[in-house]
This record gives sequence, structure tokens and C-alpha cells, in this order.
Amino acid sequence: MANAHQNNPRKEVTYALVGVIGFLLLVLLIALSGYFRPGGQHVVSNESEDMQDTELGAESASNTDVKPLISVRDEPVETITVEAIESPKKVELGKMLWFDTRLSKSGTLSCNSCHDLAKGGTDNIPTSVGYNWAEGPINSPTVLNSRYSLAQFWDGRAKDLMEQAGGPIENPLEMASSHEFVVEVLNSIPEYKAFFHDAFASEGDINIDQVTSAIALFEDTLVTPNSRFDQWLGGDDEAITAQELNGYQLFKDSGCVACHNGPAVGGGSFQKFGVFEKYTTQNLAEGRYAVTGRDEDKHLFKVPTLRNIDLTYPYFHDGQVDSLADAVNIMGKIQLNREFTSEETADIVAFLKTLTGDQPQITLPKLPPSNENTPKPVPFEKS
Amino acid sequence: MANAHQNNPRKEVTYALVGVIGFLLLVLLIALSGYFRPGGQHVVSNESEDMQDTELGAESASNTDVKPLISVRDEPVETITVEAIESPKKVELGKMLWFDTRLSKSGTLSCNSCHDLAKGGTDNIPTSVGYNWAEGPINSPTVLNSRYSLAQFWDGRAKDLMEQAGGPIENPLEMASSHEFVVEVLNSIPEYKAFFHDAFASEGDINIDQVTSAIALFEDTLVTPNSRFDQWLGGDDEAITAQELNGYQLFKDSGCVACHNGPAVGGGSFQKFGVFEKYTTQNLAEGRYAVTGRDEDKHLFKVPTLRNIDLTYPYFHDGQVDSLADAVNIMGKIQLNREFTSEETADIVAFLKTLTGDQPQITLPKLPPSNENTPKPVPFEKS
Repeated sequence: MANAHQNNPRKEVTYALVGVIGFLLLVLLIALSGYFRPGGQHVVSNESEDMQDTELGAESASNTDVKPLISVRDEPVETITVEAIESPKKVELGKMLWFDTRLSKSGTLSCNSCHDLAKGGTDNIPTSVGYNWAEGPINSPTVLNSRYSLAQFWDGRAKDLMEQAGGPIENPLEMASSHEFVVEVLNSIPEYKAFFHDAFASEGDINIDQVTSAIALFEDTLVTPNSRFDQWLGGDDEAITAQELNGYQLFKDSGCVACHNGPAVGGGSFQKFGVFEKYTTQNLAEGRYAVTGRDEDKHLFKVPTLRNIDLTYPYFHDGQVDSLADAVNIMGKIQLNREFTSEETADIVAFLKTLTGDQPQITLPKLPPSNENTPKPVPFEKS
Repeated sequence: MANAHQNNPRKEVTYALVGVIGFLLLVLLIALSGYFRPGGQHVVSNESEDMQDTELGAESASNTDVKPLISVRDEPVETITVEAIESPKKVELGKMLWFDTRLSKSGTLSCNSCHDLAKGGTDNIPTSVGYNWAEGPINSPTVLNSRYSLAQFWDGRAKDLMEQAGGPIENPLEMASSHEFVVEVLNSIPEYKAFFHDAFASEGDINIDQVTSAIALFEDTLVTPNSRFDQWLGGDDEAITAQELNGYQLFKDSGCVACHNGPAVGGGSFQKFGVFEKYTTQNLAEGRYAVTGRDEDKHLFKVPTLRNIDLTYPYFHDGQVDSLADAVNIMGKIQLNREFTSEETADIVAFLKTLTGDQPQITLPKLPPSNENTPKPVPFEKS
């Protein structure tokens, strides 16, 4: 290295060449990394320690105290933006409904039964258990960061979280209740009525739109910022290891990022599952086809978020894959026609594990009791 | 009133008489109220705003900051004593286990499924739903204030909360797992192992005694102080209404308090259910007899706590009574041979509703994920 300071024309030319090539490579890299980026704009992200606390008492009024964090890296995977909660009373009400098993026929199942906020917003089994131990047809996706999805359910049949929230209540394989029963239950409970009147500045009976709207607004708050990867995106080079960074480069270079991008690292499009090879499964779900009826939509599924993927096993719409390494290998093979070496797989898995963010801090609600006017749950159907 | 200051001998005699009679009545009242009192000593009760928060982070170390509150009324119903948490790490671990559905065979049921802390520590259905939608044999009693019970379960077959905690895990009609399976699951998860090692100052594998001990210590914290009745016990005359006070007097005078006394207003003895009249039920439970095999123990049940009774419907060991008024009337008739007037019933019900205390403030735990070494749950048994 000491020789570099000596006057040697051949070496000078070499250095100049290396410099030019390096510059060109840098331009190429920036262009490539911008290629898959959906928006293109810099992401302005806000975070606040208190934001995740959905116990919305007096202190929650100060939700405007959000500290902006500018993402210094321009990447296809974007930092999660935590927004100030606009309707804390509706969110608090939504949290009560989220945990209230009276939304189900049996009186034993709540939203949280299948989207357990102690477990990454999932139930960690292939398909869920519903009324009378019914076996659900598809894996329950995580509720965390679901606000970033272009639509809800694996087949996108609900346009937003509010529309989604009404579904499981009436699904005979899930909560097996009806919207009529649910509003009758809620309207019979004076405390609930007062909460709804207060939150919605309304009078009279509670309606199902208010119920699903409150649940959706609560779900809107269930985001997981501040993962190690977000810290890295924010400029902290030490936040992830060399292996994890390598995994991220592979994730981009192999093309995973073409579908898994944006703040949720997924959720932004429907894609055919099984591009280069058919995905073998007993699961009968036909994906987007069930909604559109168009042949080309067969086995198109909403791209799942990869945020908190370490918590949201088992994987895929059929929940048939337990290991993240297996999931990565299958995706490489059937979606990208690529066989990862075991080292490559390990690197990608290491990167994926950096996507576990701060889990929402949830204080259990205190649900108001039923009374003699409240329709009773039917846990067991007597023949 | 101005006349009182005039010199009038007849009035002086009247005042003296009223004074003497008043004094005698006071003595009588004190004697009567002391009659049913089990202990006799003044109750020293501590309470602290933070005590009920079982999120045991750094701040929980300061649990010694408990303010003593001396009960100024000498009553058979005692104020709840909130004690400083001695083992915050074990309690936090117990809370994780309490909410961890991996303690069940299906991976979907946790302690909280049947003892829901959002609903007064119960499931509010007659008998619970277990593995494969099995119907439980008996009503799930509230976990709240269960630490005050002389034994656990309706028939008292577990001597304490630790012994109780092991039961539902293995009961095929409940979580349907095994202690072996549970410790295998927990031992496969490095985070759990580290938490156990830290909390129990232990090394090596987690064992089932540590599991049930942690759960029991968490349950120990689930007390509900500061009900309006406790405020009244503490000397606040305005805390309960004249009707509620009347209900309490009736509750004592009719003899309810003979069994429903102490800090939990129950839980202190086994009593025959159906003294003057047989209690008619389809429920096959034989109570204490199942434990002792002695004929005289047939249909003896542990006296349930009346704390938070407004939240813990439906009532009795068979969960067949939904209305508190009905429950009071039945108890009057079959236990005390007394027919309450509707006004008396209303007064007693009003009193009972003053027993709803501060519910535990529970922050959902963040459960560490399973991994490839973790035995998988079996939600559906394939034939």
C-alpha cells in the first residue's frame, strides 16, 4: 500500500480505471435497486414509543407526539410508517370487539382466537379451528401490518379491513354467528351502547358497520415498526449482520423482491403460486379465481407479508410448510426457477428474521357483562 | 333546634333516654356484626395503583410501595389484601404460560380460553369447550381471587393453585395434552429456557413443577381490590347506596354470610348444595364425594366466591342459572329455607354488584416462536 504514493504512471492508470468501473457499477446498482421500487419517493416514517400502546386512556390523547425518521436508504423494502391514531375511542372500542367472544355463536371464539396478538397475529396451525371444531379451508394470515395489503383474505375478496371484519363473524366454519345476532348482543349491553355513542358521536342502536369499522380501525394500529431491518434502513449499519445483509442482497438479486416489497414486504399484488413448477398441495383453494371467475386467476394468491415471518409459521396458504428454510427453497424453485445453496438459504432466512418488529403492546380490555336481555351464546347444539 | 338550648326538664329526660337507647342499639349492632366474623382481627389491607399491572418490567421491581389501608368496619366480608409480588420474573413467566396455546394438544386452547381475564376470569358459558369441541362436565369457576380458596376445583381435589394448574393441561376434555409434551415444547424454545433459568435460578431442562408453579404465582396476582364495597369497608359511607347497604344487611341477616364470608366472600368451606330442598339439575357432578368417597360428602361443593359475581355468570356448578336474581332466590329457598320478596332479592343483587373490583390490568405477553425442534400441535386428528 505504501507504493501507492509513489509516482508510477501504470499504477495511476489502473487506479483511474478501477475508479471509473466502480462509479459505473454504483450507477448500475442504484438504477437496479430503483427498478423494483413501487413508489420511488423517499419514505418518511414516524415512530413513537407510545404509539403501539392501544390502551387509549388519557395519555393516548397525546398521539400526535410522533418523531419522524427519514429512511436514508432507498430500497424496495420500505420502512413501516407509524401514523398518529386519529380516532382513539373507536380504536379502543375495536380492541374490545377484537377480544369479545360474544361475536361468535359459541361465545368462545374471538378475532384473537385465530389472529393471536401474543403470537404474531396468527394461530400457528395450518388451518384454523372454528365452531364445533370445524376445520378452516385456508391458513389464517397475520393481522399484523394487514393495513398495507391491497385487499384482504388470500384471494382478496374483501376490499379493505372493514369489509374483511364482517366475514369471519358469519362464516359457519369460523365464528358461525350472524351480523344480526352480534348487533343484538351489543345493543343489549348499556356500556357498549354508551361506548359506541361516544366513539361514533351517534345515537340509537349500534349497527354492524360501526362494529366492523371499529375493528378495522383497531387493526389499522397493529403495525410492527422498528425491526432490526428498519433500523438498518434508517441508517444504522450495525443493526444487521454481514450474513443478514448478504441475505438481503440475495433476496433482491434472486427476484424475491419483485413481489415482496413495500412497507409490508408483500401484500401489494396477486401472484400465481407455482410459476415454474406446480405447487403440490391437498388444499382446494383456487385463489383469486374464486373472486373473478377468470381462468387466468387460478392459483393467484395475494402475496403475503414477510414482516414477522419468524412468528407467523406455518407457511403458505395451506400452512403445510413449517420451516422457513423449506419455504425459501420452495419459493426459489417454483417461483424463480432457482435452486439455492444451503448457504444462500441460510442467508435469506437470516435476513427474513430481521423483519420481526416491535409487537403491538396490547392491554386486555375489560368487557362489560351481558345481562338478562342479552341473547345467549350456543356453545353446544343439542340434537 | 333553637329550643334545645332552653332549660326544659322533660326534654332533658327525653334526650337522655334517646342517648341510652342509641348506645344500647350500637352495642347490639356491634355484637351482631361480630357474630359471623370468622377471624375477628382487624383486616390490614394494602393497595397500590401499580400492583395489578402484571407487566413486570423494570418498574415492577418497586412493588414494595404498598400503602396500608386499615379496614374501619369490622365485618364478616373482608377487604382484599393486595400483597407485594415477591417473584416478578416467575409471575411474568406464568403470564406467558397462561396465554400460551401450546400448552394444549390442538395449539388453540390456553388457560385464558376458559378463564378469560377480559371477562371476569370465566368463559360465561355453562360448561367449557375443550379439545375437539368436547363439552366440559362442570362450570369453569373464575380464576380471580382463587388464591383465597381453601382448595381448588368445585370438589376441592387440588390442594392449591399449583396442583390445579397441572389438571386442565392433561384433561382429555380440556387441553388434552400431557405434561411430557408441554415440557418438551417449552424446552425446545431457547427463549423460554432462558426465562425459566433466570426466573428459577435453575439450569438444565424446564420441568412441569416449574411450569405449574409459575402459572400459580401469576394466578396469585389475579385479585380484584377496591370494589365499591371495599371502599365502604374502608370507611367511605358514600361508596354504596342505601339499597346496596340494605342488601348487605339482608345478606348477613338471612345467613348467606355464614358461608360467603372472608376476603373472597366465599371459597372458605365445602357446603352441601341443597340443604332444605334438592337442587334439580342434569349435571352429574357429585362434588366433594368424588374426592373422599364418603356418603356425607355427596353434593358438597366448594362455596364459590361472590367477588365479581356480576361478571361470572352463568351461576352454580352446572352453570344453569343466568340471572343473579334467580340465583339469589334459589339460594334462599334451597339453602336457607327462605322466600325473598322481589324487593329483598333486588336489594341483595344490588349489594352483590358492589363486589366487582378493579380487574387485573393485563398486558398480552409476546410469546417466543416455536422452531423446527418444537413438537407440533395436533389441531385435527386425522382418522
